[in-house]
Amino acid sequence: MGIWSLALSESVTMPEHKKLILGVDLGGTKIATALATAQGEILGREYSPTPAQAGPDAVISSIFEAIEKTITLGKVELSQLLGIGIAAAGIIDCDNGKVIFSPNLPGWNEVPLRDAVEQKFSVPTYLGNDANLAALGEWRFGVKRKVANLIYITVSTGIGGGIIADGKLYTGACGTAGEVGHMTIDVNGPLCNCGNVGCWESLASGTALARETVKQINQGAHTSIVELVNGDMSKIDGKVVSLAAEQGDELAKKLISRLGYYFGVGLANLVNIFNPELILIGGGLAKMGDLLLKPAINVVMEKAFKTSANSVKIKPALLGDDSGVLGAVALVLEQSAR
Amino acid sequence: MGIWSLALSESVTMPEHKKLILGVDLGGTKIATALATAQGEILGREYSPTPAQAGPDAVISSIFEAIEKTITLGKVELSQLLGIGIAAAGIIDCDNGKVIFSPNLPGWNEVPLRDAVEQKFSVPTYLGNDANLAALGEWRFGVKRKVANLIYITVSTGIGGGIIADGKLYTGACGTAGEVGHMTIDVNGPLCNCGNVGCWESLASGTALARETVKQINQGAHTSIVELVNGDMSKIDGKVVSLAAEQGDELAKKLISRLGYYFGVGLANLVNIFNPELILIGGGLAKMGDLLLKPAINVVMEKAFKTSANSVKIKPALLGDDSGVLGAVALVLEQSAR
Repeated sequence: MGIWSLALSESVTMPEHKKLILGVDLGGTKIATALATAQGEILGREYSPTPAQAGPDAVISSIFEAIEKTITLGKVELSQLLGIGIAAAGIIDCDNGKVIFSPNLPGWNEVPLRDAVEQKFSVPTYLGNDANLAALGEWRFGVKRKVANLIYITVSTGIGGGIIADGKLYTGACGTAGEVGHMTIDVNGPLCNCGNVGCWESLASGTALARETVKQINQGAHTSIVELVNGDMSKIDGKVVSLAAEQGDELAKKLISRLGYYFGVGLANLVNIFNPELILIGGGLAKMGDLLLKPAINVVMEKAFKTSANSVKIKPALLGDDSGVLGAVALVLEQSAR
Repeated sequence: MGIWSLALSESVTMPEHKKLILGVDLGGTKIATALATAQGEILGREYSPTPAQAGPDAVISSIFEAIEKTITLGKVELSQLLGIGIAAAGIIDCDNGKVIFSPNLPGWNEVPLRDAVEQKFSVPTYLGNDANLAALGEWRFGVKRKVANLIYITVSTGIGGGIIADGKLYTGACGTAGEVGHMTIDVNGPLCNCGNVGCWESLASGTALARETVKQINQGAHTSIVELVNGDMSKIDGKVVSLAAEQGDELAKKLISRLGYYFGVGLANLVNIFNPELILIGGGLAKMGDLLLKPAINVVMEKAFKTSANSVKIKPALLGDDSGVLGAVALVLEQSAR
């Protein structure tokens, strides 16, 4: 699948010295690639499935193919690339360009992904965590660097985050900063996938919403959600509950309001800790819009320090599904400029 | 009260161009001042009580007197000062040099403290939050800038914090970043002084320890703590419980272990969010040493992501009671260098 914009046809008239950047967003289910200008204009996108179960070698081969296809369809030469940026889900060793561990990529253990891509294409390659790079992409190309302090939150099956502090991506001592989804907000709360209990993610993610919905239904709650999934409880997700709420289902509305409450508790923590100008919310659940954000913002106003709460804007992210690839593009630009 | 080091006598032989810095640490109970070199060597300290109940004008007069006394005893001229730095407890508007609000200074509402001091002495003056500046002081003069990412935590009646991110003090959009004590770690927890519930401070501070101790005693727990305070429950604080624990009191040991647990939960959050190289613990309760830190570090190792937990050192702060004044000195140096 490829989506190529009209701008692509103009690429043949671009001066040779105008360098392009190739961004890769490696997720557990799909590999997204994009060819972009230094201004973050996307000339074309490609998507292919991630053969996650087949292990690292198969996934790396698929990344090679995706890059080759993007280059070919984009009618560009490798020599026109300033660099290749890769945003990957998981714990990343930025200095050494390795994926240390990725919850949705079985068998990935200190995989030298950056060097593999760099050696294959002989183009400078950079690797970063996907949520961190999404923050960088949103900051550079979304808000066009107009704020100094920005937190990007992605909320879908889990919760991830990226931090822009004083106009710079903050990644910490070894590149693993921003794991905001695993801050404890309820020390007596439910078990999280990470092994800890009461993480923000365990209470305010799509997984948490689905778990709570099933629990309420099993306890006899009356709701149209059961019909919407034809009785198949495994199909309950944020989208379905959101649809039910829009159709007026009382349980769905109550569950999303509860989700918004817990989402707000974590946001209030970040407001108190970072005093940011802007928090951008991306990921699947962000599509709920005000249904999720309104109750969350109310909690921030109630729980966070007034000075910090009054100075932050909390809004949906600006780049949609492109935040990962554009973050990878931004990484290339930042690293090349050093 | 004044403590002047031998180095002071050498100050008369210092070349005229060698500028000194005057640091002020304004707290709810005392005003500490220090005269220091650009290397953070303290030539002399003064302490005077804060007339907090008498309001802002009286406190500002006391600050003037403390500065004058420090200058006089230090046998230096105002012209030898590179600047005056002030670390103040509360919400600070760094850009405008105002104390917006301070929980332990009644009547302080947008007080232009920086300008008042600058106009009085005609010396460039800078103002910052005390915990933020303590982080800066510990980083510049304690660890001598040898790490890029450091979190300073002060734990006494409350919990405050300061953040060094990528070798720079991080203060956020309007100077109020670092309010880590008010991150929710137990969404169903006890009421905090800030109005929120389950803040880290409400579970892991000296106030929390005293509250829990009194509660246990009222519920009939057997402990030597009652004798240590001669039956006066209002005298129960971290020091007393710590002493009882050292003497083998079982309840005291259990209570400090509980405190360490909650302290560790908040630290684990910060480790996941910031992936810092170093966390330094200051404030009154830090004097408990391993009694507090050992159980806390165990919780971090258990709850935080492995990569981040393995790369952080958690240790007592290095500058003791001087972190505030030396932070104020560091602020002058950073701002003057701009």
